[in-house]
Amino acid sequence: MEDLETYLQNHRQQQLDELMTFLRYPSISTLPENEKDVLQCAEFLAQHARSIGFEHVQLLPTPGHPVLYADWLHAPGKPTVLVYGHYDVQPVDPLELWKTPPFAPTIADGQIWARGASDDKGPVFVHFKAFESLLQTTGSLPVNVKLCIEGEEEIGSRHLPEVVEKNAALFAADVLVVSDTTMFQPGQPSVCYGLRGLAALQVNVFGANGDVHSGLYGGAIPNPIHALVSILSALHDEQGRVTVPGFYGDVETVAEDERKAMVSLSTGDEEMAKSLGISALFGESGYSTLERLWVRPTLEINGIYGGFQGAGTKTVIPSEAHAKITCRLVPNQEPQKIQQSVSAWLQQIAPPGVRVEVQLLDGSKPFLTPFHHPAIQLAAKAYEHAYGVPAVFTRMGGSIGIMEDFDRVLHIPSVLMGFSLDNDNFHAPNEHFALENFDKGLRALCYYWNNLADVLQA
Amino acid sequence: MEDLETYLQNHRQQQLDELMTFLRYPSISTLPENEKDVLQCAEFLAQHARSIGFEHVQLLPTPGHPVLYADWLHAPGKPTVLVYGHYDVQPVDPLELWKTPPFAPTIADGQIWARGASDDKGPVFVHFKAFESLLQTTGSLPVNVKLCIEGEEEIGSRHLPEVVEKNAALFAADVLVVSDTTMFQPGQPSVCYGLRGLAALQVNVFGANGDVHSGLYGGAIPNPIHALVSILSALHDEQGRVTVPGFYGDVETVAEDERKAMVSLSTGDEEMAKSLGISALFGESGYSTLERLWVRPTLEINGIYGGFQGAGTKTVIPSEAHAKITCRLVPNQEPQKIQQSVSAWLQQIAPPGVRVEVQLLDGSKPFLTPFHHPAIQLAAKAYEHAYGVPAVFTRMGGSIGIMEDFDRVLHIPSVLMGFSLDNDNFHAPNEHFALENFDKGLRALCYYWNNLADVLQA
Repeated sequence: MEDLETYLQNHRQQQLDELMTFLRYPSISTLPENEKDVLQCAEFLAQHARSIGFEHVQLLPTPGHPVLYADWLHAPGKPTVLVYGHYDVQPVDPLELWKTPPFAPTIADGQIWARGASDDKGPVFVHFKAFESLLQTTGSLPVNVKLCIEGEEEIGSRHLPEVVEKNAALFAADVLVVSDTTMFQPGQPSVCYGLRGLAALQVNVFGANGDVHSGLYGGAIPNPIHALVSILSALHDEQGRVTVPGFYGDVETVAEDERKAMVSLSTGDEEMAKSLGISALFGESGYSTLERLWVRPTLEINGIYGGFQGAGTKTVIPSEAHAKITCRLVPNQEPQKIQQSVSAWLQQIAPPGVRVEVQLLDGSKPFLTPFHHPAIQLAAKAYEHAYGVPAVFTRMGGSIGIMEDFDRVLHIPSVLMGFSLDNDNFHAPNEHFALENFDKGLRALCYYWNNLADVLQA
Repeated sequence: MEDLETYLQNHRQQQLDELMTFLRYPSISTLPENEKDVLQCAEFLAQHARSIGFEHVQLLPTPGHPVLYADWLHAPGKPTVLVYGHYDVQPVDPLELWKTPPFAPTIADGQIWARGASDDKGPVFVHFKAFESLLQTTGSLPVNVKLCIEGEEEIGSRHLPEVVEKNAALFAADVLVVSDTTMFQPGQPSVCYGLRGLAALQVNVFGANGDVHSGLYGGAIPNPIHALVSILSALHDEQGRVTVPGFYGDVETVAEDERKAMVSLSTGDEEMAKSLGISALFGESGYSTLERLWVRPTLEINGIYGGFQGAGTKTVIPSEAHAKITCRLVPNQEPQKIQQSVSAWLQQIAPPGVRVEVQLLDGSKPFLTPFHHPAIQLAAKAYEHAYGVPAVFTRMGGSIGIMEDFDRVLHIPSVLMGFSLDNDNFHAPNEHFALENFDKGLRALCYYWNNLADVLQA
């Protein structure tokens, strides 16, 4: 048998060719006309898992697109790793902005260009090729492995929670590993160990029972838009703090070493402001930008609407006005409790004559694997080995709903080790994936499985 | 010759039949497909003016619909009255809500039902029939008369200001009389002597140079919606006063007798609140509802928009947010000055990191004929004579841009004596006009011209 490095070098073109085959399936999960393509993509991946050496390969059916399950469980006494990813992709419009056709993968400038290259077919395939390489060079894997590759991530993982719940025993494992996040910077290994949760709220303010003429009634009756801007403006103080009573009550304190690691990561505040075309960043006082984004809860108004919005002017006092809000939550905040706090506060400060309601549209809990957990620290070591620079530990401002579901059902630590970059154009024309990250990602994963086998208890 | 009362009674059916002919023209000024109908309606009215005895009848052309001019100038030494009205009407959709076809006028329940019946063909025709009745019973008119009946009132009187400016000598008169307003209550003669002006503003707030993900950036960058609600909420204090520095600086004090007359008019605050489905009215403290509506300036937000407005949630921080504002102005406020005051204030209180602009979309000056002017007081007398109850003196919360133009070009007092009612459904399905107001309006106008001839100086 070849050694790992020789195998990887000798089989690089074959492995890239196979990735390009995977990328040719237009597996756009949101479009009904691509339903067959999504299924064919899943069948290709199932067949490919079998050909590598996975067993019990099956497409678990859902009312939408199927979930691929496969396993390799011949490492008795060793831990079991569950790898999650997705084979579905985003739509491709506007098509005219693509320099190469989205489903005709092209290699140029050190990148593979195709829809799904970085989100998430490329990273998923890096996992497949890491397992293949280990099996081909050693005849076995250092850990037990289960795969969970879904086809509905781009449409909100509609059916995956139910599939995981129904098949909890099948998916049981010691650690969850996901490669669907981005690296902190190009060339910078990044292990993500926490995501914020979400409470998505709808605020409705009601006044008169119909729209009225602002010339005839203006100045004499409550205006729901006035009420809305009044209560929304009272959600933050001038220091950027959320003023809702109880909002910060459940927030866990971040350990000092963790906070220091975070503060040490330069975010380039000035660069960020410049790239966004704003004069300065702004946020909760007393915290650095990364703390504001990763470990502090936030409340953002995402949309506001009411009354006339066309060109010119219309002399109307509308009967209602609305806003969309999302709160990002950190451990131990609960979406339901946040909705109740915001609702109580807005009711309390609402001016007379209007009715205010606050609905919870969507919620997910924050997710956190303890910073010092061996699964986190070993991922960093493997990453460093492959990239030649120490890994950084990150959290993410956004939310990945499925992480909460895995946590709830399987109760296992999760490691987010991505190989994509922020400027890889996922969800946009000319998506691409760096060959460097394909190559180094492959090695990082092989090292990680070996590290885990030695340290993590089954 | 018959006397006036006998003539009116004997010719009632003929006069109503002629009004119904006028109402059959679908003179919808905003719809290109009705362009010919609008012209035919104007031609009918011109021909009708000639048949009554008017001279110099002409349709003054505009880039849109023509303005009807006609005069009768055979009362030497007597004042000249200019009567303004409009022969165009609003669209009729939703058509399915009409109980009778909008352009097939029907008499039922003491009303004429048709589009334009009360706004403004009915009141315009009451003027025509009053002149006809006086000419037929006395052989002449007690005053000199000029008519200005336009075809673009429902589309903002686009070309009338230019027509009036170009033909200032033709339209020169001693008093302007308009019947395009409503009575204070059914059966209640109402002379309106003032209208508020308008400053229509657009507020734009700009943040980053593009929309960004609120999970990735939320809490760390300025959110234009936050800035917008913050600055808009600072436009009023808790007492309903406008906080913009200088906003009230130019406001004229209302004379005590005028204010008393106003306060004595019950507005039925509770009924008004009940009919609007709100728990209480709300406005500037220290003023009654009618004062708030007629003699105090106001600032109302008519629309607000920014970010996501669809169903569900979208995790976005938009790059911009907007609001529409109208300020109602009272004598001596100026639209341009108000725009400057609001703009300066919003710039001053804007939070860091956003750019705020305030544009003047539209403006009109307030209009006021002195309360004690004989043209006002004589209109009240004639009205009382016809209706059998004393007239009330009102002002209006709304604005009629063309009143400002007449004032600016002709420098004459204006009297607004309407015969329509607030519930006549103008601009809505099943528009109607009360026969009682057709009959009494006719008489009130005949009496008014006689009164004016005796008192007002030419």
